[in-house]
Amino acid sequence: MDQLPNSRDAALRRRAGAVIPGGLWGHLDAARLPAGYPQYYQRAEGCRLTDVDGHTVIDFMCSWGPIVLGHRNPAVEEAAARQAAQGDAMNGPAVVLVELAEAMVAQIPAADWCLFEKNGTDATTACVTIARAGTGRRKILAARGSYHGAAPWCSPSLVGVTAEDRAHVLHYEYNDIASLENAVDQADGDLAGILVAAFRHDLGRDQEMPDPAFARRLRELADQTGAALILDDVRAGFRLDLGGSWEPLGIRPDLAAWSKAIANGHALSAVTGAERFRDAAAGIFTTGSFWCAAVPMAAAFATLTELRRLDGPAHMRAMGERLRAGFEAGAARHGLAIRQSGPAQMPLMLFEGDADFARGNAFCAAALRAGAYFHPKHNMFLSCAHTAADIDLALQAAEAGFAAAAAIG
Amino acid sequence: MDQLPNSRDAALRRRAGAVIPGGLWGHLDAARLPAGYPQYYQRAEGCRLTDVDGHTVIDFMCSWGPIVLGHRNPAVEEAAARQAAQGDAMNGPAVVLVELAEAMVAQIPAADWCLFEKNGTDATTACVTIARAGTGRRKILAARGSYHGAAPWCSPSLVGVTAEDRAHVLHYEYNDIASLENAVDQADGDLAGILVAAFRHDLGRDQEMPDPAFARRLRELADQTGAALILDDVRAGFRLDLGGSWEPLGIRPDLAAWSKAIANGHALSAVTGAERFRDAAAGIFTTGSFWCAAVPMAAAFATLTELRRLDGPAHMRAMGERLRAGFEAGAARHGLAIRQSGPAQMPLMLFEGDADFARGNAFCAAALRAGAYFHPKHNMFLSCAHTAADIDLALQAAEAGFAAAAAIG
Repeated sequence: MDQLPNSRDAALRRRAGAVIPGGLWGHLDAARLPAGYPQYYQRAEGCRLTDVDGHTVIDFMCSWGPIVLGHRNPAVEEAAARQAAQGDAMNGPAVVLVELAEAMVAQIPAADWCLFEKNGTDATTACVTIARAGTGRRKILAARGSYHGAAPWCSPSLVGVTAEDRAHVLHYEYNDIASLENAVDQADGDLAGILVAAFRHDLGRDQEMPDPAFARRLRELADQTGAALILDDVRAGFRLDLGGSWEPLGIRPDLAAWSKAIANGHALSAVTGAERFRDAAAGIFTTGSFWCAAVPMAAAFATLTELRRLDGPAHMRAMGERLRAGFEAGAARHGLAIRQSGPAQMPLMLFEGDADFARGNAFCAAALRAGAYFHPKHNMFLSCAHTAADIDLALQAAEAGFAAAAAIG
Repeated sequence: MDQLPNSRDAALRRRAGAVIPGGLWGHLDAARLPAGYPQYYQRAEGCRLTDVDGHTVIDFMCSWGPIVLGHRNPAVEEAAARQAAQGDAMNGPAVVLVELAEAMVAQIPAADWCLFEKNGTDATTACVTIARAGTGRRKILAARGSYHGAAPWCSPSLVGVTAEDRAHVLHYEYNDIASLENAVDQADGDLAGILVAAFRHDLGRDQEMPDPAFARRLRELADQTGAALILDDVRAGFRLDLGGSWEPLGIRPDLAAWSKAIANGHALSAVTGAERFRDAAAGIFTTGSFWCAAVPMAAAFATLTELRRLDGPAHMRAMGERLRAGFEAGAARHGLAIRQSGPAQMPLMLFEGDADFARGNAFCAAALRAGAYFHPKHNMFLSCAHTAADIDLALQAAEAGFAAAAAIG
């Protein structure tokens, strides 16, 4: 299959191969993507990315979530630069820490308090530690296959992980009340917390919104056992509902983990919680060298302000629905059966009968060459920078993708 | 004891008390400091910090390590702003990732490869995971009392931590070969790695440089057992020796963890390693939403360049020795016995017979009012922004501190 010229990207990958194990760590490793996807970028602006070989695409991954207002959003970058001109990492926080914590508590109905960290994994790990500290118990329930971070207790890989790292993690099936009740029984009075993703977004399978009855049962079981209901809103937070992804369900968690979109790409994560867990949160030791740095907090304050001003979730939903309608029409024109799932702000499109993702990969590779960056098996992300005109341009690129997918046997 | 007016700081602490558990998490909580120390800062420049009530001090904590060139270093901030104008968190890294990884490998003789994360804890945790992956074994040795991060496996607090989180961590005494050999025996053929801090810097006790015979024995035992020698250079890295803190000893680790000073306050950490562990490093899953962000990498590249240009460690050592000589003379003038320990770049001064730190606290509180920010029990940090004139000014402030310490019973 033809690919765009990529000599600079290829040269950088060769250099990286000498000094970085495997070329790149983690989820941004382009080896996990269809052939032709670039690894290195030179520029980002709004919803557009330009790779080191000069190809510009309309992007639907948003740095895998963090970019919620668009790259280099002026309000965010001005706030960050203003704070950077005063100070960033100091011997304590700047005023913006208090302003941001107050804004989080005001915006998130389930939050009586807030603390800040750097990674989503820091936040989910702190939630687990707070739940254990607050209950004096050990077991944590999590849905099988849900991603909650890269620490040994939750990493999707077992390489370098010991059995003891997961000794107190029990599993249930997302949206399956019977399996949840069974896991609570297994915890046998030692249940500290029930961890749940905002919706089911496991790699390579249809996304599932939480069944309202399942969510209610989670809340009931947490109440009955005294365990903490922990909402992992790291991936979905600030895209579905600015008050928390389960606000529309009317289910409020005891603890919630946030990161990704919180500061439009600046490194920050947060834990929010209910009054009942305030003392436990004060009692655990959680810290990092850069956790009081002021610039990412100034960026976060500006990001939340802009998201409220724009009604970001509504805009992203509308743009996601426009994209979905275009995918539906495009697939139909080419006689292709597709499945679209999850919230429109974080859409996933899979081809029917495409177990090896051959159609999905062909679709993405051809669309990329035509100017749109989609993902064949991970949920995508909309941002407030995507306009209707951008969606329509991306759908023209998708047309080339559907043609390529249809050409597969 | 008189304190400086602090009405803004007090008001912010009251507001924070409502929305942040305990007022502030972690090591920057001013409740851990002598009375009168501010919590909130409005401005930082070079080696000077200005709190929200407008008091400016010459600072000897450097944000507890990250600030190695001085706050708002022009070379670093220009490099960061230049990269920010292009892009930060994108769907993959920018060119500067490769440049920075190459610079790390060129600068650090023990490093054949490098990967980047956000927190020091991310780096020590990855070292442990890589050691386990590379050896197929589980036990990690660490010195009793050494700080290696805030994750459940290593946190200095047991609140919310389970016994299983530490099931495979065994302890030895820093600089004690017999205890080290005993711990290796306890690991009983299941030894994955030996973790060691660059020097002993436990809170509230005299610092100890590594005994060369102890360091050699660590290397021998790692070689004999096949375990990884893991140097935790998070706190000391880039202040003692730009090639790694144990280069002067001639002992090279298999894996090393870096953070704090690497990007002069921008959030970044790194793992470097020897060829033997490259495949293991490629095989583990370690990732985070902001770990490929380009701005902190551009800041790190500029920081390392400036540190080499200035011979940062030599400058910081000279300034630290000037501070020490002044402390020695000041204490003598007031008839006070003090002990100074550790590397001059990261000095610690304790008063003799001051088990409750009453003299140390009085010294610090009075010196703070007179314009210098010292710490009574944690190692301090010099930066390249400290000049001889700054040290001499700080020593004038220390004079008030010694007078206050001498006034105690």
